[in-house]
Amino acid sequence: MGIDVRTVEWTGGGLRLLDQTVLPDRVEYRVIEDVDALVDAIRRLVVRGAPALGVAGAFGVAVALRQAAREGWDAAALDAAVTRVREARPTAVNLAAGVDRVLPFAPKGAEAVAAEAQALLEEDVRGNRAIGRHGADWILGRSPDRPLRVLTHCNAGALATAGWGTALGVVRELHDRGRVELVYVDETRPLLQGARLTAWELARAGIPCAVQADGAAPSTVLRGLADVAVIGADRIAANGDTANKIGSVGVALACTAAGIPLVVAAPWSTVDLALPDGGGIPIEERPAAEVLGFGRIRTAPDGVGAFNPAFDVTPARLVTALVTETGVLEVSAGTTPDRAAPR
Amino acid sequence: MGIDVRTVEWTGGGLRLLDQTVLPDRVEYRVIEDVDALVDAIRRLVVRGAPALGVAGAFGVAVALRQAAREGWDAAALDAAVTRVREARPTAVNLAAGVDRVLPFAPKGAEAVAAEAQALLEEDVRGNRAIGRHGADWILGRSPDRPLRVLTHCNAGALATAGWGTALGVVRELHDRGRVELVYVDETRPLLQGARLTAWELARAGIPCAVQADGAAPSTVLRGLADVAVIGADRIAANGDTANKIGSVGVALACTAAGIPLVVAAPWSTVDLALPDGGGIPIEERPAAEVLGFGRIRTAPDGVGAFNPAFDVTPARLVTALVTETGVLEVSAGTTPDRAAPR
Repeated sequence: MGIDVRTVEWTGGGLRLLDQTVLPDRVEYRVIEDVDALVDAIRRLVVRGAPALGVAGAFGVAVALRQAAREGWDAAALDAAVTRVREARPTAVNLAAGVDRVLPFAPKGAEAVAAEAQALLEEDVRGNRAIGRHGADWILGRSPDRPLRVLTHCNAGALATAGWGTALGVVRELHDRGRVELVYVDETRPLLQGARLTAWELARAGIPCAVQADGAAPSTVLRGLADVAVIGADRIAANGDTANKIGSVGVALACTAAGIPLVVAAPWSTVDLALPDGGGIPIEERPAAEVLGFGRIRTAPDGVGAFNPAFDVTPARLVTALVTETGVLEVSAGTTPDRAAPR
Repeated sequence: MGIDVRTVEWTGGGLRLLDQTVLPDRVEYRVIEDVDALVDAIRRLVVRGAPALGVAGAFGVAVALRQAAREGWDAAALDAAVTRVREARPTAVNLAAGVDRVLPFAPKGAEAVAAEAQALLEEDVRGNRAIGRHGADWILGRSPDRPLRVLTHCNAGALATAGWGTALGVVRELHDRGRVELVYVDETRPLLQGARLTAWELARAGIPCAVQADGAAPSTVLRGLADVAVIGADRIAANGDTANKIGSVGVALACTAAGIPLVVAAPWSTVDLALPDGGGIPIEERPAAEVLGFGRIRTAPDGVGAFNPAFDVTPARLVTALVTETGVLEVSAGTTPDRAAPR
C-alpha cells in the first residue's frame, strides 16, 4: 500500500493511533480501548485530519462494540456511545460518514465492523494515490516547465489520512516526478500542524521545505515566490465552498490576486451535497487557551479574551481546482461538485 | 502629554527603554549607555515600531556622542557608530529619519541632540493624538451608528510610538467616544506583538479585545465580524503602497473582498516620497529560529528550513484610507501621498 506513516491502525489489541500531539518530538502510539479515550483523542487532536477522522470513527464503532460486550451495555448505551464518537468534532463530514459506513455491520460484531473500517482505510490510501496523480497531472499541465514552488497550509498529509495524504499526496507525487523545488509550509497556529506535522512528513520524504508564519503566506504568494497552493478540506459544500483549517481563505485570496491556482485536494467523501453552500458548515470553536498561549506557556496578559475558530470557509470562486480520486473539477470556472457528482 | 506608557525616555542616566521582549510577563526597563547596547536592543526588538524607532534613533545619537566623549573617539568612529544605529533595522524609514533629524545638533553636544530628540518625541505624541482624531472622525463618518468591531494586526500602539499609538491611537480615540465594542487582535507570529503587546495595552486601557491566530483574520473579516481594520505602517511609498508587519496584506485582501475599510494610521514621517512604489522597500528577513520555535522551545523538526520576512507590502489599491497627523488620504480612490504631500 505504500504507507510509510501508520496514522490509524487496527491491531489485535484494538485501535492504535499515532499521537500527533507529541510529534515531531516523539513518535508515540496510543492504544484506544474505550469510547471515552477515543473521544478524548479526537478532541485533543491525537488523531486529526478529515480522512483520518473518518477511518478512526469507523474503527471507533468496533471499539464501542467491544466495550459494550465487555461491560454489558444495552442498545441505548451503545447508541449513545456511537453518537459521541460521531459528534466528537463537528466540522469534518468524514467522521460521521466513517461511523455511518460501518454501522450496518454492527449486528455482525466488532470484527465485521473492523473489517469494513479496514476496507475504508485501504480505499482511503488508494484514493489518496489517485488524488496525487490527478492533482500532479493537472498542476503540471498549467505550470512552467521547471521544479515548482508549492505552498501548503496545515497538514493534509499522511498524518491527516490513512497514510499517504491528500494535499501532500499531490506534493509527494510531484516530488516523485522530480518537480518540487520547495514547499512553503504555513506553521498553522494555534496548534502548529504545519511546523510540526507537515514539516516532519516532508523531511522524512526528503522534500525541501521552508516553514513560515501564517501571516507570511499571502505575501509569499503576492511576491511571486509560489507557483501553486495545495490544501486539503474538511467539508466541501455542493457549490464548491470549502471548509479547511483556519487561515486557508487568506491563502486563497492571495492566490486569486496573484493569478496562481489554489488546488483543494480531498477525497470525494469530503463533499457534502446536502449543503448547498458553505454558510451551512458548522465551524468548530476551540479553547481560548490555544491562542492565548503556546503549549503550556501563557503569552497573552491575564484577563484577555480570544477568538479561536478552527476552520474557515473559502468561497467557491477562489477554488481553482478540486482534486478528488475521481478527477479534477475546475470549481471557480463553474464545474462545481453538484454539477459533477459521480453517478 | 497623556502618555501612559513610556516606551522611550531620556533620563539623567541616558536612554531608557521599556523592554518589550519581556512584556506582558514583566515591566522592565533597559538603560542604554552605549551604541552596542542600543543596536542590540533595536535588533532584538526591545524597542520596536516605526515611530518609536525614530525617537530611539534620535536619542541614540546623543548616546553615541556621550560614549564618544567618554572613550575619546575620533570623528570617523563617531560617524561609524551613528551609521550603525541608523541601519540597525532596514524597513522602517523612521529610524534613519530620527537619526538624521538630530544630526545637525551634534556639534552642540549630546544635550542639544537629546533636546531635539525630546522635541521629536513630543511631536510624535501630539501627532498620534491628531491621527487618532482624524482616524476616528473618518471611520465614524462611514460606519453604522453603534459601537464598532475593529480588527488590528501587530502593535501600532503606545509601545510602537512615544506613548499613545497610531492604529491604537485611533482605537483609543474611538473608545474615548464610546464607540468600540471589541478589538480583534491578531497575535502576530512569530514574535506575538499582538498577543503580548497590543492585548496588554488594550487591557490597561479597559478596551475589550479578543486575540486570534493570524490565520483567522481574513475569515473574521469575511464573516462580517469586523467593521473596520486599522493597522500601522513601517514605510509608505509615494503611491501609497504600505510596508507593515508580515500578515498585513492578508488582512487587506480580506477587507477589500468584504467591502470594509482598511485604515493605515501612521505619522507623515513614515511616507518615503523617494520611493515611487513598494517594490523598492527593503524587506527585513529575520532569523529562522523565530519561526521554527517559540521562545526557546523548538517546535519544527530538526533540519527544516524557514522563511521569515518581517514585513509585507500592501498595494495602494487595498489601502482605503491613510491617516496621518495632517489628515486622511483616500488612497485606493486615488488620493496617494505623492499627490497630497504637505507643501
